[in-house]
Amino acid sequence: MSELHFKAGELDAGDDLASVRSRFVLDDVVYLDGNSLGALPANVPGRVEDVVRRQWGELRIRSWEESGWWTAPERIGDRIAPLVGAGAGQIVVGDSTSVNVFKALVGAVRLARIGGAGHDERGPGGSGREQRDEIVVDATTFPTDGYIAESAARMTGCTLRPVTPAEVPDVLGDRTAAVLLNHVDYRTGRLHDLPGLTSAVHAAGAVAVWDLCHSAGALPVGLDEHGVGLAVGCTYKYLNGGPGSPAYLYVRRELQDRFDSPLPGWNSHAEPFGMRPDYTPAAGAPRGRVGTPDILSMLALEAALEVWDGVSVAGVRAKSLALTDFFLECVAAYVPARRVESLTPVAHAERGSQVALRCSDAGEVMKRLIERGVVGDFRHPDVLRFGFTPLYVGFADVERAARVLAEVWGEAPGGGPGDTPEPGGGAG
Amino acid sequence: MSELHFKAGELDAGDDLASVRSRFVLDDVVYLDGNSLGALPANVPGRVEDVVRRQWGELRIRSWEESGWWTAPERIGDRIAPLVGAGAGQIVVGDSTSVNVFKALVGAVRLARIGGAGHDERGPGGSGREQRDEIVVDATTFPTDGYIAESAARMTGCTLRPVTPAEVPDVLGDRTAAVLLNHVDYRTGRLHDLPGLTSAVHAAGAVAVWDLCHSAGALPVGLDEHGVGLAVGCTYKYLNGGPGSPAYLYVRRELQDRFDSPLPGWNSHAEPFGMRPDYTPAAGAPRGRVGTPDILSMLALEAALEVWDGVSVAGVRAKSLALTDFFLECVAAYVPARRVESLTPVAHAERGSQVALRCSDAGEVMKRLIERGVVGDFRHPDVLRFGFTPLYVGFADVERAARVLAEVWGEAPGGGPGDTPEPGGGAG
Repeated sequence: MSELHFKAGELDAGDDLASVRSRFVLDDVVYLDGNSLGALPANVPGRVEDVVRRQWGELRIRSWEESGWWTAPERIGDRIAPLVGAGAGQIVVGDSTSVNVFKALVGAVRLARIGGAGHDERGPGGSGREQRDEIVVDATTFPTDGYIAESAARMTGCTLRPVTPAEVPDVLGDRTAAVLLNHVDYRTGRLHDLPGLTSAVHAAGAVAVWDLCHSAGALPVGLDEHGVGLAVGCTYKYLNGGPGSPAYLYVRRELQDRFDSPLPGWNSHAEPFGMRPDYTPAAGAPRGRVGTPDILSMLALEAALEVWDGVSVAGVRAKSLALTDFFLECVAAYVPARRVESLTPVAHAERGSQVALRCSDAGEVMKRLIERGVVGDFRHPDVLRFGFTPLYVGFADVERAARVLAEVWGEAPGGGPGDTPEPGGGAG
Repeated sequence: MSELHFKAGELDAGDDLASVRSRFVLDDVVYLDGNSLGALPANVPGRVEDVVRRQWGELRIRSWEESGWWTAPERIGDRIAPLVGAGAGQIVVGDSTSVNVFKALVGAVRLARIGGAGHDERGPGGSGREQRDEIVVDATTFPTDGYIAESAARMTGCTLRPVTPAEVPDVLGDRTAAVLLNHVDYRTGRLHDLPGLTSAVHAAGAVAVWDLCHSAGALPVGLDEHGVGLAVGCTYKYLNGGPGSPAYLYVRRELQDRFDSPLPGWNSHAEPFGMRPDYTPAAGAPRGRVGTPDILSMLALEAALEVWDGVSVAGVRAKSLALTDFFLECVAAYVPARRVESLTPVAHAERGSQVALRCSDAGEVMKRLIERGVVGDFRHPDVLRFGFTPLYVGFADVERAARVLAEVWGEAPGGGPGDTPEPGGGAG
């Protein structure tokens, strides 16, 4: 029995969040892919069954009012709000992340052209701001953000300027309309400086749009505190909403009455059932809605968010850092240095809730890990990606994952129980 | 017992589709709101439970491949295809109808500017077509189509021209880029001339976009046969996919390699998992995808589409017309003429699968109908709307609905069984 195995036991014994694991459906697999698809919260199946059988099957159309279907996008937005440091009334749930990136980025360009993310009410024409014609985008971003940014640029008469996040402050200027940034890099797990970059973008008179897919639910975001203008995020990673569950859009309260969506559907009309030919946008968060909300997926997400009852994001962050620290420690101890290279920053201030290890044959290595009951994922061309969801991953899981990783190369450390997981155990 | 009551019994006895009703979860309510939210197919709850508990809960991330999640948008599109007269490989499911209207309309304008919906391969610059700068839209349309069309016009440098469908041929010209039309008017139930209008639009070198929300699943559409370029539709009305279930986009095969989506998400990339910074659009129907598909709602829809096994759209259309004919006959017999005025065309060629009755106090009248177990809906300001889903509405339902409508004004015809439904019976 290795020293790290004992240490894992001690860390688990002192883990305040350990009991939250029972709120999920889990098995003996070490599931380190919650940054791709969160595990199933135990209360979701029953809720979904009620939505299908009673709300849809029995109440049918009456559920739009009686079961709260119509107001679900704002209600669930308010449930997400405290997890990303937002006050109520600023987040609306619906559509995919990609569609929300489009709304946010086009909205940001339009805001910049009438006065930026500041709280002043100066209209268009002041100080030449209508000339802003550049969208700066994180060149290391998840690809969809870049593709959508290119379309947003094309449709708003802007040029797209891809740079690394570190280069952003240097390229900001009078021409910058909007800047699209990822809070945590999907590949390396690097955490970017949201407060500092937001300030720099706003100081240049541009509008920052943050993609929170890989940070919400894993670490404090502080949208209100840091003056973020617009943000989007998915709900199927650390928020455990289920496969393809709807994304969300945050529009800062002070910007809401100037937010000009490129997707003005009937759900964002001030009077949706007026069926009027002219569009009058709703006030507040509902202005970010588009079409009829996807109720089954949305109410599954609402149930999934109940696992957060009594959980503090600060506590989640503390455990997340302890988990990734411990994983790096175990990998250093078990896996010969020549096999893997960590792409994840050592500094806590620069680390999300995942560890990315570069290695040769990464695709094949991940396949073997999964066969041995340790599920992470592979990102082209050479990255093993491990996500650590503090709500259900424990320290013994972490130690086992590192040990199994070493076993893949036949480098197993001395034997304790669980050293030989069953082949094919990944299905649980 | 009235003569029409007996006639209803005879019609039901001769109804080839009568047995399909058992594929749905229904009660003793007369549900004439399937044009708003279709009833629950009986096989859906079990399927959804499997998706949640086993596919998500046990297989987790592996389900993207092993449970066919990744290919669901095209697979389910191919299941819808025969219902709208489309060959395989042209329909993709995902996003809301509003978002699909945006994709289709912007795509149509771009297609028109490089050569229209014709099958020629002439590039941009030929015969001045790049000057096309007008989007014609049905002024009587469901509002979201108009709002989205306005945004599409703004973002493509076009002017929006709202006209009635009858006026469309007169306003087409060299400047027309795209025309957005509803196959069936959501309010009056009027069926528009899809073949004739499509031909006229294409003859003008423009591209037609059809909204099939109120026709798909209720009558033959014939997308391939009539040369339609682009079409969109929802799946929660006559396709019974559930509240807010994902919509679909049809792009005619010959146009697919020139379809230029304004929402190019990673799901529509030629190599989605290549995570490449440059966007290369996928071939075929997947080019209409955007972000991660909403699996719970999508697979509920897939189960719901199984009710169509062995059902012909021609048979559905024949029954639909018989139902609406019979409803108009019963209303004429039971309800004094001064009370209601039908807005629905008498001619079969101009009628969808609903009947719209204009009356004073329509909101209050509908409330009373619902209390008496007849569920339709109210459309501002003065319309009672009744949808007839041939898969589960029978002729006795129709007779009862007309009879209860008469009772609302205290004009009940002579008593047969069922004349006095329980108050509040709408919940079943």
